[in-house]
Amino acid sequence: MTVIRRFGAGLAEGGSGDAALLGGKGANLCEMARLGLPVPPGFVIGIDAFQDWRAGKGLPEAAIAEAMAWLESATGRGFGGAEAPLLVAVRSGAPVSMPGMLDTVLNVGLTDAGADALAAESSPRFVEDCRRRLIPAIAASAMGVDAEEMEDVIDDWLVERGKTALVGLPASDLAEINARLMAAAHEEGTDDFPGTATAQLHAAIEGVFASWSGHRAAAYRRMHGMTGIPGTAAVVQAMVFGNHREASATGVAFTRDPSTGERRLYGEYLENAQGEDVVAGIRTPAPLTLADAAAHGAAQKSMEERMPTAFAELSAACAQLEAHFADAQDIEFTVDQGTLWLLQTRRAKCSSRAAMRIAVEMEGEGAISRDDALLRFVPTDIDRMLHTALDPAAPKQVVARGLPASPGAVTGEVCFTAQEAEALKARDRAAILVRIETSPEDIHGMYAAAGVLTVRGGMTSHAAVVARGLGTPCVCGASDARVDLEAGLLHGTGGAIIRRGDILTIDGTAGEALLGAVAMIDPEPEPAFATLMDWADARRRLRVRANADTALDADLARRLGAEGIGLARTEHAFFQPGRLATLQRMILTESADNRRTALASLSSDQRADFLALLQAMEGLPVCIRLLDPPLHEFLPTSEEEITEVAEAMGVAVDVVKARVDSLREFNPMLGRRGCRIGVVSPEIYDMQIRALLQAAADFEDLTGNAADLEIMVPFVASDHEMRLMAQRVASMAASLAHGSGMRPSYRIGAMLETPRSCLRADIVCAHAEFISFGTNDLTQMTYGLSRDDAGRFIRDYIARGALSFDPFHRLDQDGVGALVALGAERGRSVRPDLVTGLCGEHGGDPATIRFCEDLGLDYISCSPYRAPAARLAAAQATILREREGDAAV
Amino acid sequence: MTVIRRFGAGLAEGGSGDAALLGGKGANLCEMARLGLPVPPGFVIGIDAFQDWRAGKGLPEAAIAEAMAWLESATGRGFGGAEAPLLVAVRSGAPVSMPGMLDTVLNVGLTDAGADALAAESSPRFVEDCRRRLIPAIAASAMGVDAEEMEDVIDDWLVERGKTALVGLPASDLAEINARLMAAAHEEGTDDFPGTATAQLHAAIEGVFASWSGHRAAAYRRMHGMTGIPGTAAVVQAMVFGNHREASATGVAFTRDPSTGERRLYGEYLENAQGEDVVAGIRTPAPLTLADAAAHGAAQKSMEERMPTAFAELSAACAQLEAHFADAQDIEFTVDQGTLWLLQTRRAKCSSRAAMRIAVEMEGEGAISRDDALLRFVPTDIDRMLHTALDPAAPKQVVARGLPASPGAVTGEVCFTAQEAEALKARDRAAILVRIETSPEDIHGMYAAAGVLTVRGGMTSHAAVVARGLGTPCVCGASDARVDLEAGLLHGTGGAIIRRGDILTIDGTAGEALLGAVAMIDPEPEPAFATLMDWADARRRLRVRANADTALDADLARRLGAEGIGLARTEHAFFQPGRLATLQRMILTESADNRRTALASLSSDQRADFLALLQAMEGLPVCIRLLDPPLHEFLPTSEEEITEVAEAMGVAVDVVKARVDSLREFNPMLGRRGCRIGVVSPEIYDMQIRALLQAAADFEDLTGNAADLEIMVPFVASDHEMRLMAQRVASMAASLAHGSGMRPSYRIGAMLETPRSCLRADIVCAHAEFISFGTNDLTQMTYGLSRDDAGRFIRDYIARGALSFDPFHRLDQDGVGALVALGAERGRSVRPDLVTGLCGEHGGDPATIRFCEDLGLDYISCSPYRAPAARLAAAQATILREREGDAAV
Repeated sequence: MTVIRRFGAGLAEGGSGDAALLGGKGANLCEMARLGLPVPPGFVIGIDAFQDWRAGKGLPEAAIAEAMAWLESATGRGFGGAEAPLLVAVRSGAPVSMPGMLDTVLNVGLTDAGADALAAESSPRFVEDCRRRLIPAIAASAMGVDAEEMEDVIDDWLVERGKTALVGLPASDLAEINARLMAAAHEEGTDDFPGTATAQLHAAIEGVFASWSGHRAAAYRRMHGMTGIPGTAAVVQAMVFGNHREASATGVAFTRDPSTGERRLYGEYLENAQGEDVVAGIRTPAPLTLADAAAHGAAQKSMEERMPTAFAELSAACAQLEAHFADAQDIEFTVDQGTLWLLQTRRAKCSSRAAMRIAVEMEGEGAISRDDALLRFVPTDIDRMLHTALDPAAPKQVVARGLPASPGAVTGEVCFTAQEAEALKARDRAAILVRIETSPEDIHGMYAAAGVLTVRGGMTSHAAVVARGLGTPCVCGASDARVDLEAGLLHGTGGAIIRRGDILTIDGTAGEALLGAVAMIDPEPEPAFATLMDWADARRRLRVRANADTALDADLARRLGAEGIGLARTEHAFFQPGRLATLQRMILTESADNRRTALASLSSDQRADFLALLQAMEGLPVCIRLLDPPLHEFLPTSEEEITEVAEAMGVAVDVVKARVDSLREFNPMLGRRGCRIGVVSPEIYDMQIRALLQAAADFEDLTGNAADLEIMVPFVASDHEMRLMAQRVASMAASLAHGSGMRPSYRIGAMLETPRSCLRADIVCAHAEFISFGTNDLTQMTYGLSRDDAGRFIRDYIARGALSFDPFHRLDQDGVGALVALGAERGRSVRPDLVTGLCGEHGGDPATIRFCEDLGLDYISCSPYRAPAARLAAAQATILREREGDAAV
Repeated sequence: MTVIRRFGAGLAEGGSGDAALLGGKGANLCEMARLGLPVPPGFVIGIDAFQDWRAGKGLPEAAIAEAMAWLESATGRGFGGAEAPLLVAVRSGAPVSMPGMLDTVLNVGLTDAGADALAAESSPRFVEDCRRRLIPAIAASAMGVDAEEMEDVIDDWLVERGKTALVGLPASDLAEINARLMAAAHEEGTDDFPGTATAQLHAAIEGVFASWSGHRAAAYRRMHGMTGIPGTAAVVQAMVFGNHREASATGVAFTRDPSTGERRLYGEYLENAQGEDVVAGIRTPAPLTLADAAAHGAAQKSMEERMPTAFAELSAACAQLEAHFADAQDIEFTVDQGTLWLLQTRRAKCSSRAAMRIAVEMEGEGAISRDDALLRFVPTDIDRMLHTALDPAAPKQVVARGLPASPGAVTGEVCFTAQEAEALKARDRAAILVRIETSPEDIHGMYAAAGVLTVRGGMTSHAAVVARGLGTPCVCGASDARVDLEAGLLHGTGGAIIRRGDILTIDGTAGEALLGAVAMIDPEPEPAFATLMDWADARRRLRVRANADTALDADLARRLGAEGIGLARTEHAFFQPGRLATLQRMILTESADNRRTALASLSSDQRADFLALLQAMEGLPVCIRLLDPPLHEFLPTSEEEITEVAEAMGVAVDVVKARVDSLREFNPMLGRRGCRIGVVSPEIYDMQIRALLQAAADFEDLTGNAADLEIMVPFVASDHEMRLMAQRVASMAASLAHGSGMRPSYRIGAMLETPRSCLRADIVCAHAEFISFGTNDLTQMTYGLSRDDAGRFIRDYIARGALSFDPFHRLDQDGVGALVALGAERGRSVRPDLVTGLCGEHGGDPATIRFCEDLGLDYISCSPYRAPAARLAAAQATILREREGDAAV
């Protein structure tokens, strides 16, 4: 059964809850009618009719005819009649807003028969103006004429007559144009122009429906990741005319300023205009209010001055709609010979900053609750607020398109190696590091670079993880581009060639690299942001920690509201030049003496590092992970580097080469890494454990307070490993107490990142006081998919439907999440006070945070820059869990 | 409470069920006493006393004294007394047999005080002979004297006097030797020789206990993987003397021939001898029976002839014991002046062939049930029966020790490349291929080689898997050896250097490489084997399939009793030289025409391959897996190969190199492999699917019977992948039916080898008609451990206790098994008729087979050579499950 719902003229057969059926526009028209607001009468042809039509079942003509009969009697006019002819508008309306993407057809029903009567009611020019809008739309949908052909006809006429615009042309000129349009349509078209009003109506509805599948709309949905939307409804509504010469206008009003969030009526209007004229930019619209007109010295007078009655009605309607929808509204209206009509209301699209101010102020006004204010925001929008952004108005030439790996925008000089990046930085110049992929050896370059672009790798590739940690804008996996390192060239899309030293802009928020410098906008701090964050902190159950490797990261994390460190990767510290050489010596030497010396040097460095982390966190929990990557990641790879290291160590190149070879692995991700290093080469772990315990003791000496140190054992697969590591730490603590009297407090725990550790968490937790799910690796193991290799095909893979999303970007709750749930449940079954956290890249993702909330984990940990968004997401998770819990009762 | 259990002289305070408490020897002595057989009275000091003693709590002296008092009264003799002195033997006895590894002390209680009385009872020489056996044992345990020192004393005396052995020396000579032994003991020892009988007894018990931790015994347990054994008991038993001059002897009897299994009393005896003399080899023992003496033309007369009464008693006892224990027995006895005493009975260790004949014949005799016969065998012993073996008596020089990756033994010439192996084979010479590791490109070399040795890799490394499939003896992961490929050298253990062309023997059963040619024994077929296999086939529920890639493999599999193919790897066929070049062209070409031509050629090859597999299996199920390894495995790697391929294709070397580079992966195991190839590069899968369907149609045309073809999709991680593949196959089948009228029957299913596919099996099975667990990969993913990389550290890892076993060798039931169980359960929840199998390397492992039986899987699949063992293991699994089920009721 086709749904047709009528509204206006005292009827309201729907409401704002019916958007899934009627589309957003139709549902809200019904709602406004229900509220008694002035809405031109009409009806909505529901989305199921669209689906039937698309399935080849045609339009529900009988139902439409019945609804039109009602509309005739409601307006007292006749559709296609010679006397008081009824014109209607046919508009689209999907359940989600796709502004400007779908078609609208105005003045439907304007036939030759009714033209005279209309001219008599208004003016001949009015009729021709209406006809000029109708012909191209109908020609396109009913006759298969290209819309651009119609534009060309008008342009040709203007050029011929030496005119620049249609505005101000007399009726005769418009009539001439309309004749030409009609002739062109018949010449190009496959059919005759529909002569009857009903044929026009059907053509208009089909045109609106067809625009859903048009190139423009499809591209928009793809770009915005809009999937699963069933289609569009069509709204058929009696025309009201803003293009009557007298006391007629059309405009747009916002109940609050969409840029600043200020509470004031804001908007624009245009007299003697219809439809798209306001936004088309040919005539400059005038402000709505006296205050705006005064403030901007506008040439035209405000609506408040010109049409005080209609303005007063509009103001009252705006206030009523904002209060009713409990949010700022974006309202379209028309004044037809002095009468105000509302054509649409929807949630106002505001900047993030404005949205925050509006939410906080509305809470202050008692219009919404704090919970509702918190639920109003997409947490990832918060991310964006903290980063510099490109000026949306600036022109752009995209030369590479990849994944938005680390948000923010930056402009700098292109370089291709870590050394070049450091050299640029040393000269205070911004470096854009371009790499095929990055490895830990590039980390200095990444520290030095202002922005990073890689050709391989996904959202959680090395480059992406490091860049997010550093807050450096980064685009990863720009697989259409090609890097020629030897020649020092980046071959971009469209044949662009970028050389070393060329200026490039990285937009890490959009995932694009742009040629040259692009204008930026720098967000100012918004006072409402702090208020919202305070509310979120008060409301959330989940703690939010940050992944931070250095005291610098940790300071940033504290400033952004992190309540501890969930993951400090000890390996990053080894990549400092002096230390790397020492570590290499330790790994490569055959001499026990040399090894001891090297370890002692590393140990004192690490003790200082760890103390700095504990101090930065001021007694909050600090979870430090023992060495994770395989040792060969620290060794030289190129001939030159090997030679250099061999010379520095005073051993033969072949010896170094043989050792490097012997540590090389087929699948490093599945090799001698994590606690396997601790089992097989215990001296490194012993060094780290000692440094950790000493640092905790140092902290306690310095501050008089206990350190909250967590020692995390990475990549546990068997319970035996965890037992061995716990024993090792305990015996190291005992020997420290015995040797130096230090008795620092600490906890030992496991990073659960293999499926087995989750399946056996009950056994692992016999020896672990806390667990933290490392969902990056857990995802790799659960899928059997390396994140570094997946980058090359995962977009293709998703496009072909073999995956519905990138599991490194979004937590796979069905598979990976099932293991997390199992791990948490089994761990707590043997240790009710087990501390549980999640520290993968997913930690900052709102859906994952909701998942963690439902599992009752204690905390999540994410990059410092994502902490504010995570705090908000955690608050939303708590609110929604409680509401759903209530709903379930 | 210390357990002391007495036996003999009418008492029997234990039985054969008490081995865990009393050790095997003690428990069976009690059992024999209970059966009324002539056992010298004595008592067992239980294993808990050993544990107390080892914990430093000393011996339970009071309990021992009480038991000794009973023994005195039972024998009517006095321990340490001057009249009728009681001598005892102290023997070890662990719950499992460790033949010859633990100490025995005879003649304990022989003091100066009682010597004269004993001499009077027997002879002075008897006393000195007893003393000569006692002194070294007591000196070692009570005085800390090295046992070898004592041997040296005797050897020195013999050299001095120009004698070769103690046998036949008069009492005076033995007395002189004893004096020297005693003097040496006092000189070297830390204490005096214990003068009292009780002190001797305590020293002897402590000596027996201490031998448990001795180097020899510990090494034996390590070698045999014997862990968790609590220790040894000590048996104290009145001496009986086979070394009395008259009518005394000691010997060993088997109730059946341990080499052939023939039903006849078999054994040896030695007159006037004690303890170890029979096996020491100084005097040649005589046969027990007249028949044996006649058959072997023995110089000495048989026991049957010399001691007919004792022999008759022994025969009766043997029959009684075999019937009682329902298995062939190995019995130690002594005849003391005409009286038969039994000192030990245990299950006879027989060759596998003998054991089979015995089991089958005993079933025929009604002595045991068929189920018991089937349960009697370790299935892996069956493996060994099918392979050539080294002559155990041949001398060996081990040059490399690794994992027993593929059983059997072979001698050949050393070579270091696949080309060399092929060249040797072409000249009909046996090649031993020595590699650091093998890759799929070596497969020709492996086909050509008679044996394989690799320095890296574990039991399931590429080399191991391929070798087992081929039945080629293989040793993997011989990490102590070093290969210098450039120089063409293998540096073995102990400084051995093996050059290209040197002769080497591979013992894949033991995991050793031996210098030169080593004598072999070739097993003949044993008729009882076929009988046992028939029984097993009739009894088992689980089907046994084989992993077979070629028609040759498939034929072998059929002959070894496989009931279908559980896994045919389609990639192996691409490594044939002509096909590899075609495949490379297909992957590397930019031209669509070239690609089509290459695919057409591969398609017709594969169609023929698949038809051959179906024909070899004669309508049994054949499960063929679509391409699994990443494409770069098929591409050239070295500069030369790349140049060659580029020339053959007529394209620039750089183009080939770039394409090869673009396909290279960081972690190939987690990369674009399995069905990901099918999604991202569908043309290869389409070619294979078409060839499969055509082959099935060909089979049906040729035979008039339906093919039982299963098309298996590898490495499924998401349900979408399975859906896409099922759709692809269905549409290919539809187009085949439409185009050529072929309508072959087939099923489509998934190989579950990622954790996610197990967790989501319910969703996957919406599109899969069967599932097969690929436990090799599943183990890799569950542990996050690459089998190729693990080989280098896993033994060390196990030695350090971080793993209790190699999960690639034995299925990890707790972790990997939990996923298998979950997968089977969830899969069947949506499809009750789902066919379920397991096709990893674990498929041939008895414990895994039991696990699969309990899960109710339909079949397991293993290498052809392991099929017989798997059939037996499956029967055992059924029997044990039923028995445990009965027991549970």
